[in-house]
Amino acid sequence: MIIDCHGHYTTAPGQHDLWRKSQLAAFREGRPSPGYPAISDDEIRESIEQNQLRLLRERGADMTILSPRASAMAHHEGDERISGEWARACNDLIARVVGLFPETFIGVCQLPQSPGADLAASVAELERCVQMGFVGCNLNPDPSGGRWTGPPLTDRYWYPIFEKMIELEVPATVHVSSSCNPNFHATGAHYINADTTAFMQFIAGDLFADFPGLRLVIPHGGGAVPYHWGRYRGLADMLGKPPLAEHVMRNVFFDTCVYHQPGINLLFEVIDADNILFGSEMVGAVRGIDPETGHYFDDTKRYLDKLGLSAADAAKVQEGNARRVYPRLDQALRARGL
Amino acid sequence: MIIDCHGHYTTAPGQHDLWRKSQLAAFREGRPSPGYPAISDDEIRESIEQNQLRLLRERGADMTILSPRASAMAHHEGDERISGEWARACNDLIARVVGLFPETFIGVCQLPQSPGADLAASVAELERCVQMGFVGCNLNPDPSGGRWTGPPLTDRYWYPIFEKMIELEVPATVHVSSSCNPNFHATGAHYINADTTAFMQFIAGDLFADFPGLRLVIPHGGGAVPYHWGRYRGLADMLGKPPLAEHVMRNVFFDTCVYHQPGINLLFEVIDADNILFGSEMVGAVRGIDPETGHYFDDTKRYLDKLGLSAADAAKVQEGNARRVYPRLDQALRARGL
Repeated sequence: MIIDCHGHYTTAPGQHDLWRKSQLAAFREGRPSPGYPAISDDEIRESIEQNQLRLLRERGADMTILSPRASAMAHHEGDERISGEWARACNDLIARVVGLFPETFIGVCQLPQSPGADLAASVAELERCVQMGFVGCNLNPDPSGGRWTGPPLTDRYWYPIFEKMIELEVPATVHVSSSCNPNFHATGAHYINADTTAFMQFIAGDLFADFPGLRLVIPHGGGAVPYHWGRYRGLADMLGKPPLAEHVMRNVFFDTCVYHQPGINLLFEVIDADNILFGSEMVGAVRGIDPETGHYFDDTKRYLDKLGLSAADAAKVQEGNARRVYPRLDQALRARGL
Repeated sequence: MIIDCHGHYTTAPGQHDLWRKSQLAAFREGRPSPGYPAISDDEIRESIEQNQLRLLRERGADMTILSPRASAMAHHEGDERISGEWARACNDLIARVVGLFPETFIGVCQLPQSPGADLAASVAELERCVQMGFVGCNLNPDPSGGRWTGPPLTDRYWYPIFEKMIELEVPATVHVSSSCNPNFHATGAHYINADTTAFMQFIAGDLFADFPGLRLVIPHGGGAVPYHWGRYRGLADMLGKPPLAEHVMRNVFFDTCVYHQPGINLLFEVIDADNILFGSEMVGAVRGIDPETGHYFDDTKRYLDKLGLSAADAAKVQEGNARRVYPRLDQALRARGL
């Protein structure tokens, strides 16, 4: 089976996004948040069937690990209460999608992070979501939205969520949200920079000595890292760290959200197949058709198919690694006899 | 001939760096800056002969476009006066290196940028340096040192320096300095992020419609850009911009500071040879020997040699493009009959 590890519910019914707007407006005006609108199962069904489900079938994948729209998390908006309400609303909607399409989608949750706030609310929301059947979380390494005012991921600030992730046997995808810094285009700079930044934090720190069981997915093919793999190997050496295979790559995984064949080729040339999870971020950042190929930029399965991977490596990248990195996904599939 | 477009004087005599320390200490204590120390020609000669010149000869290149140490620019330290003194001291030292080794080095200057200050002092220093024979400048897109508090490069804030660059026929390398943000390791995150960020700013803006003659080098192989070339082509399309070949790549060039063979292979697969300048950033960010090859990570000429470029493309990348992007370099070489 083919599991796409990176999908966001970018096509949620309009009322959901309108509620967010009115929630933030109420916050600015000092009013209580409005009540969350009624959204019917049919509206959710339609939003999925015409988009993610249709494309999943057309492209030949079986399942998507689905989380709320990353760019809309916007942890820099409002305050901790606002982020908490928004995370619960988004995660509840994901739970409804999974309830309607249990064969095809499984949930990953948004956390109610907020700049300067501790992670107690995130720990609680992760527990709530795992009880609902979620298998992972998206962890925003920069809840300040492009201002980067918080501490690096190797700081003890983050330890409560890492401890809870290990206890619950769930990984995190390291995924920023939108940028309120005019220097950083969200999907063209902030996303890729965050991926690169997180990886370099892991090199410079010793996080996985403290958490040998921690598993983190760096999306978008690992940002700039595979392209500059020699630089990162060399920097680890200059910093007196063990080789990356020991120091970082027992705990860190990259997805395949790299939207052209040469990039995917490089990814597989330098990164071990044990560390790569099939992903597309569909429907996501780049929605058009590549005039050079006539296919969607984000139809990453086509690039994979052209790699000529061994059957064993293809099975890892398309299924095995996802089941290993997300043990609760594996349990859910086994419970269905898969 | 083989021209390395990216070298910093990272091996300057110790008195130079000590003066910077005492300058910043005096600033903090409200005292006037100390006098700049005497540095003999022999000290400069030795610092170059044992390092850049030795390695240049060992590796088989002929010339380096040399600028002050990028990580030491630190425009976020002190204030505009401090940045001005420091830029002049650094540039004067480069001028002395070039005076001692005129066949091998040609100067690119540091600008006295300072967060929040306008670019009048940078314009003046660029003029001064060009009168001394410099052929380009390093432009820091984030003088706040990893806080990214200034405007993007497409903002009119930057126009005075772009206008002066065009008037003087000099390009800029877009190069950040050290990071005072604990999230960003300087050479492992901040450098690469800045490259990626600048490129995405150029996609999202229309800078080169206003400045069709502007030439900017994005170092470190263009940050994450070539690896995510499909993403950038797709984002330009989503933003309603012309294809990148027209919209950005008439004005933007990448160097070859990518420290492993697969990365260099990718760079040349997706980026036209007209847009690539040979560079190594030697002696720079990554100084060790790659245990996988037995050669220095930053000996980028070895990677180039393995590409099997046509003679015409090799000539462009090693010499022709540098002479085209740096017209004053071309004039200097022609004056020597080269």
